[in-house]
Amino acid sequence: MKPIHVGLLGVGTVGGGTYTVLRRNQQEITRRTGRNIIIRMIADLDQERIRTLTAGDNDVVATSDALEIARHPDIDIVVELIGGQTIAKQAILEAIAHGKHVVTANKALLANHGNEIFAAAQQHNVIVAFEAAVAGGIPIIKALREGLAANQIEWIAGIINGTSNYILSEMRTKGLDFDTALASAQQLGYAEADPTFDIKGFDAAHKITIMAALAFGIPVRFDQTYIEGITQLANEDIRYAEELGYRIKLLGITKRTSSGIELRVHPTLIPAKRLIANVEGVMNAIIAQGDAVGPTLYYGAGAGAEPTASAVIADLVDVTRLMTSNPEHRVPVLAFLPELLSDTPIISMEEVETAYYLRLQVADQPGVLADISRILADNDISISAMIQKEHLSARNKVSIIMLLHKTKEKNTNAAIKKIQNLPVIADKIIRIRLEELGN
Amino acid sequence: MKPIHVGLLGVGTVGGGTYTVLRRNQQEITRRTGRNIIIRMIADLDQERIRTLTAGDNDVVATSDALEIARHPDIDIVVELIGGQTIAKQAILEAIAHGKHVVTANKALLANHGNEIFAAAQQHNVIVAFEAAVAGGIPIIKALREGLAANQIEWIAGIINGTSNYILSEMRTKGLDFDTALASAQQLGYAEADPTFDIKGFDAAHKITIMAALAFGIPVRFDQTYIEGITQLANEDIRYAEELGYRIKLLGITKRTSSGIELRVHPTLIPAKRLIANVEGVMNAIIAQGDAVGPTLYYGAGAGAEPTASAVIADLVDVTRLMTSNPEHRVPVLAFLPELLSDTPIISMEEVETAYYLRLQVADQPGVLADISRILADNDISISAMIQKEHLSARNKVSIIMLLHKTKEKNTNAAIKKIQNLPVIADKIIRIRLEELGN
Repeated sequence: MKPIHVGLLGVGTVGGGTYTVLRRNQQEITRRTGRNIIIRMIADLDQERIRTLTAGDNDVVATSDALEIARHPDIDIVVELIGGQTIAKQAILEAIAHGKHVVTANKALLANHGNEIFAAAQQHNVIVAFEAAVAGGIPIIKALREGLAANQIEWIAGIINGTSNYILSEMRTKGLDFDTALASAQQLGYAEADPTFDIKGFDAAHKITIMAALAFGIPVRFDQTYIEGITQLANEDIRYAEELGYRIKLLGITKRTSSGIELRVHPTLIPAKRLIANVEGVMNAIIAQGDAVGPTLYYGAGAGAEPTASAVIADLVDVTRLMTSNPEHRVPVLAFLPELLSDTPIISMEEVETAYYLRLQVADQPGVLADISRILADNDISISAMIQKEHLSARNKVSIIMLLHKTKEKNTNAAIKKIQNLPVIADKIIRIRLEELGN
Repeated sequence: MKPIHVGLLGVGTVGGGTYTVLRRNQQEITRRTGRNIIIRMIADLDQERIRTLTAGDNDVVATSDALEIARHPDIDIVVELIGGQTIAKQAILEAIAHGKHVVTANKALLANHGNEIFAAAQQHNVIVAFEAAVAGGIPIIKALREGLAANQIEWIAGIINGTSNYILSEMRTKGLDFDTALASAQQLGYAEADPTFDIKGFDAAHKITIMAALAFGIPVRFDQTYIEGITQLANEDIRYAEELGYRIKLLGITKRTSSGIELRVHPTLIPAKRLIANVEGVMNAIIAQGDAVGPTLYYGAGAGAEPTASAVIADLVDVTRLMTSNPEHRVPVLAFLPELLSDTPIISMEEVETAYYLRLQVADQPGVLADISRILADNDISISAMIQKEHLSARNKVSIIMLLHKTKEKNTNAAIKKIQNLPVIADKIIRIRLEELGN
């Protein structure tokens, strides 16, 4: 069969990995597909980078113009690994308009402009594949769209940002504070010089937004995702959580409820005995709970040149097989037929029901606990566990750590506001959400 | 689009689950596929069972003759959930001969007669799908065939028999011996009245044999799989392993080496800190290590009505999409094109290289350890750890527990034989293999 001609946009880390793995495993991949998948053109502003990567490979045409590849008649599939939302978006839309299939790892672009891109792809009968956009090498998109197709997905919870997970692992195992752990992550190349994107939860939010669309058959709704990062986490809380049998992880969570879909990213206490609580360092893991299959978990490298290339190339193989088929019989880009997407609303964080961990620093005097308990009870919140600790620095204060049963966030907010105003409360109340993730 | 007509053979646990889930989630599944997948005919020797299951569903035709369905012109896909290797095989071959696609959960049949069945399917241009044959609801077949298509798979190791894993979990957490744990598993319905198939490792062997074929592009070679079950495991060894930082799990293992492919099932010490070591009860988990992606892990329910139905129906959805496509562009049944399967040999257990746990019960007298160490050294085996324990019953004996570095099984066999003949060795030497599964 005729070889498939690929145009590669961007040869940074993932682009370089894609080129390398595709060449190294060419024979094995051809044994699977029956046809060669060949990178024919590469675009990168840095021409030297292309030359270094492709040294000795005379069949590759180098250009600095991504759009040239997007429009080139010799190219069947365009792989967008430029990142960002300007040139990348333009190139993808141009490729689609020229009838080319697209593979991308660009989660930010899909989270923000996925609906527009997918609509264009549908109009032009081309495929947009994005396995590499969520959790690197873990084939989670395929699992959600195909492997679990029999199920009504009930919820998804995932460790989907390796940088944050590395920092949290370091804080727990070495007793570091956030800043020290972040510095260590930066030194090892696990966090960027400007780590905002990872530690503030935006990256995880892009990914959980995409998974929510796939799981529930809804449009991509990044603007409605609740996002809270790990920058405010104190080591103290990691230790108290541990004492209560929990670990703190930055989770992306999406859940189907009777009033709508929850879509949120925040630090979360989860039982230490859960498999996902034991995912350490930069690794990623996702639990998908289906009504028939129950809980399933997928674990692997969430980033890095070759793991991400693994996902990009799996998409290339898929597209190679599907491009000749009737578009009606392809797996829909968002798992459900575009005309049957649902408009189930995303519910606001105030309406989300979850359990909580609270840490209150209070004056060490009689009656304090009675006041706090009264306010909680008045807001229909019940306490499931409580420990009292000496304050780390002040002798006349104590720390009270409480776990609260599931309740609506707005109730907790109201109670916290009232408790915060009690004269005995010395500092800002720490509140971290808690999810049991099964039983 | 025209609905897909399915003929269901066998409505035991999984067949019943398949019918139930397909009906319950009909709407969600149609949102995914754009066409109805309808069970039109059901065969079961127990007609009452069909009536009970389909009460009120007047569109289903019941029969006691599986072959009637396999030949029926109205049926597009035959789902074989009868089990066994007689009628099931006959019905599958008949369906294939009549140009029908087949979905089956029958691991024993595929492990023993897969090559014949797959050849027939290829000849008739039909699909044989078997996601449900390995690890129940976990979409591991799809991950190996498609999700990891960019990789040279290096090795796979899996907890793929829930019954055995439940027994081992009970032995460890409750300090039970094998027989008591087995009885508890039987009482809870996790083990059958005749549990041979599960506890002797045959079921795990069927599954790892199928995964090896998919991972390496080789024919199904069940007859060459090394199989050792868990019936000989003493609680004592589980405890000593724990003390050394390991858990004992029944693993199916297959590995690509320079001299051939390892294919084996046996109890295995694995580091307690590995995620897979913490998979408890009847749950399944599989690690697949690819050269690009590194280690990936897949976890979920390995059996049960609805989890297995989840896999059966995912296959139905896949077949529904693929049946109209050119057979050349379908995912090959064994992941690689049939004409490009490799004849890489399975290496004999004697040639396998692995690490070991040994327990020796020896007379408590000077010089014993020197004799043992000498024999190990003479066979090029080095010791990585050793602990000495009082013998559980005899005062004049001690138990020596050793971990041996990686060596060929034949070296270990030779050394054990010589050590066993030392006059100071009182009982049969216990030998359990050990795998680090990463670093």
